[in-house]
Amino acid sequence: MTVDNNAGRRHRVVIIGSGFGGLFAAKGLKRADVDVTLIAKTTHHLFQPLLYQVATGILSVGEIAPATRIILRKQRNTQVLLGDVVGIDLEKKTVTSKLLDWERVTTYDSLIVAAGAQQSYFGNDHFEAFAPGMKTVDDALELRGRILGAFEAAEVTTSEEERKRRLTFVVVGAGPTGVEVVGQIAELADRTLKGAFRSIDPTHARVILIEAASAVLPPMGPKLGLKAQRRLEKMGVEVKLNTMVTDVDYMGLTVKEDGEEHRIECAVKVWSAGVQASPLGKLIADQSDGTEVDRAGRVVVEPDLTVKGHPNVFVIGDLMSVPGVPGMAQGAIQGAVYATKQIKAELKGAQPADRKPFKYFNKGSMATVSRFSAVCQIGKIEFGGFLAWLAWLGLHLYYLVGSRNRIVAVYSWFITFLGRGRGQLAITERWVFARRALEQSRDQSAQKSIG
Amino acid sequence: MTVDNNAGRRHRVVIIGSGFGGLFAAKGLKRADVDVTLIAKTTHHLFQPLLYQVATGILSVGEIAPATRIILRKQRNTQVLLGDVVGIDLEKKTVTSKLLDWERVTTYDSLIVAAGAQQSYFGNDHFEAFAPGMKTVDDALELRGRILGAFEAAEVTTSEEERKRRLTFVVVGAGPTGVEVVGQIAELADRTLKGAFRSIDPTHARVILIEAASAVLPPMGPKLGLKAQRRLEKMGVEVKLNTMVTDVDYMGLTVKEDGEEHRIECAVKVWSAGVQASPLGKLIADQSDGTEVDRAGRVVVEPDLTVKGHPNVFVIGDLMSVPGVPGMAQGAIQGAVYATKQIKAELKGAQPADRKPFKYFNKGSMATVSRFSAVCQIGKIEFGGFLAWLAWLGLHLYYLVGSRNRIVAVYSWFITFLGRGRGQLAITERWVFARRALEQSRDQSAQKSIG
Repeated sequence: MTVDNNAGRRHRVVIIGSGFGGLFAAKGLKRADVDVTLIAKTTHHLFQPLLYQVATGILSVGEIAPATRIILRKQRNTQVLLGDVVGIDLEKKTVTSKLLDWERVTTYDSLIVAAGAQQSYFGNDHFEAFAPGMKTVDDALELRGRILGAFEAAEVTTSEEERKRRLTFVVVGAGPTGVEVVGQIAELADRTLKGAFRSIDPTHARVILIEAASAVLPPMGPKLGLKAQRRLEKMGVEVKLNTMVTDVDYMGLTVKEDGEEHRIECAVKVWSAGVQASPLGKLIADQSDGTEVDRAGRVVVEPDLTVKGHPNVFVIGDLMSVPGVPGMAQGAIQGAVYATKQIKAELKGAQPADRKPFKYFNKGSMATVSRFSAVCQIGKIEFGGFLAWLAWLGLHLYYLVGSRNRIVAVYSWFITFLGRGRGQLAITERWVFARRALEQSRDQSAQKSIG
Repeated sequence: MTVDNNAGRRHRVVIIGSGFGGLFAAKGLKRADVDVTLIAKTTHHLFQPLLYQVATGILSVGEIAPATRIILRKQRNTQVLLGDVVGIDLEKKTVTSKLLDWERVTTYDSLIVAAGAQQSYFGNDHFEAFAPGMKTVDDALELRGRILGAFEAAEVTTSEEERKRRLTFVVVGAGPTGVEVVGQIAELADRTLKGAFRSIDPTHARVILIEAASAVLPPMGPKLGLKAQRRLEKMGVEVKLNTMVTDVDYMGLTVKEDGEEHRIECAVKVWSAGVQASPLGKLIADQSDGTEVDRAGRVVVEPDLTVKGHPNVFVIGDLMSVPGVPGMAQGAIQGAVYATKQIKAELKGAQPADRKPFKYFNKGSMATVSRFSAVCQIGKIEFGGFLAWLAWLGLHLYYLVGSRNRIVAVYSWFITFLGRGRGQLAITERWVFARRALEQSRDQSAQKSIG
């Protein structure tokens, strides 16, 4: 990398994305003699690990999605731009972003791509309208509307069959997000909504967790997985392992269990079964001889997290593929710290050839199952229950951005976990009941009846 | 009204609406020997006087829109149903509501219609896509997306003209809502967003309040109106009185001032210039000989708030037209208390003929202009400034539902008014920048170029 700030202008760093990778990359350049432009397609930094609490009415969007430009307001060397990145040119060193009708081309000397991943339906994209994922605040609000709307619709309908369908909730995928959201749907039904209906009893809702693998929380090992499973089952969640989803439609889903297909009629389906990296991964890899993307679309980076032939282009976070680094906040943050360290060192004369390879330090992982119960893995230490839940609480508070958000989150948890209230049960007209899914379902039926 | 609970079943009261009128009607029947069904088209009770704080990023939806069924959970004689009322039959005494594909018919002995009002564009309904009102949480979130999105777009664009347009904010109508939202847009630009951009200076935003009458806050009298106007002008708001809006489109609006038409190019337009009662008003009036609706569609009710010939059908809140009763929370609450009192008295043997006419007790009115400054009118006492603001603070806290919401609101006000932070600046992808307006504008241009 030639550092050309001797040409009278400062070294320009462009960062794509405002998640953990993008935000920590910007912060890592706080005191550096560079001009930073952070381009993201949302105006906020999303604290994704708590998104399920927005979907289930505990937190508001504000608490987990502070405005990126307010976080970085005092960092005078950094500009935040809203826009969809539609082009990256590794030769010309430009990033093209689009906002409404305007295209804007930004030139970089160093590029940090932290564009993240979205939900993957493994080629069955038509599942998406019926079973939204949990990746954006739009997803979370959509799911909040569907989950609470299902109870409302069950109260109104006079058909016993439809009532049962409305009160069946299915979460597909038993990773941390799946486990957390299924646990909160169960607690919402059993505690928060108890006694609030007259024709139905929300505590009779059927809550199902479906996983293709043979254990809950596969990456955390069989012991913690079993612990989480037992806890979920104690809460009344049906856990179906070794079960594949073969079709999803408006009325429910078809699953394959022990070699046989059968139907589960249900209104609310939540998809947390896999991720697909941003298409920017392939866009970059295609411009670099010898750089590939893996099956999930992640860029197989060099040991210094760059793409072959372009030591000034770092790919970090969920968009990078590095063996042993999970797609979690820790990986993204460490990648950001590593990339900005190299940039800063090279501004002071170091050479890209001298870079030491990126090394991931696994600080452990955790997942909450319900109030007062979590599972936690730190190195070889594994533990669950209340102690793990306290660890979860402390860690999430530490990483939430902004003291206001911490205080409101603690207060909201106090209300929900010690009491049974939830402060964010409001749903908008636009999001109530999956109007989109219903419309798509009608479109499909119409097409069928025409075709 | 024949009370037929001697026929072996309880007297049935149906309430339409979950605003101040509907909620207080339900609460008024808490201990009555009746079965209450409250039918509303949203799942929440909206505290509309604070909606402008959702639009400007101070409060989340949850704080001002608690779930109606949770508020009424312990009131065992009351069922809450979500649905759009699509029919009322005064002869058969039935209400037909619709939710998705299900219609449901509910029979009543007494009916309380509190279906409220929506924004009125005085026959120019095509203004709506470009200048949303402030009546629902959807409206408030739409406006939040537009207001914050306009600053984002101004930061990105390289056209000086477009930047100016993006940074021009127009509020139409100088009633309490208009004054409050225009004041908060000014404070958002001047305080919260100050220093958060690099290409634009948000404190240079042009904020305009347009009013057709000759004073700000017309119903509060010239003295308080002038006080509010002076305060707004001190904050940099341009107040244009005696100014009519003659057209609204994507790029801005056309106004008539001193007999001359001219354009104001602006991205964000907020409409708070008038209300139109729910169409249920006309639906009812058409079934009652001698009952009319006024120009705003409100039902001109009898002295006991019922419609002629149907002493069991009360119309209250923004849907009723009673001389001297403003379309505010107080009027709706007092109407609800009055109606439920008659129902309860008649259950114990009183006759409709004995009803004393409804009498409105004017507790006064108020509007905040900015932090630490409000105007307040209680009977003949008029005052403004900090004292009025404290009165505003106390009153709004008193009427907010739920201790959680009160605590979070106070904390949020502390952050925003003493500090300059706002906890709810997050906007969703769906709401960022008036995509709807842009699309409609394109549709219209396309039609023009075709036609």
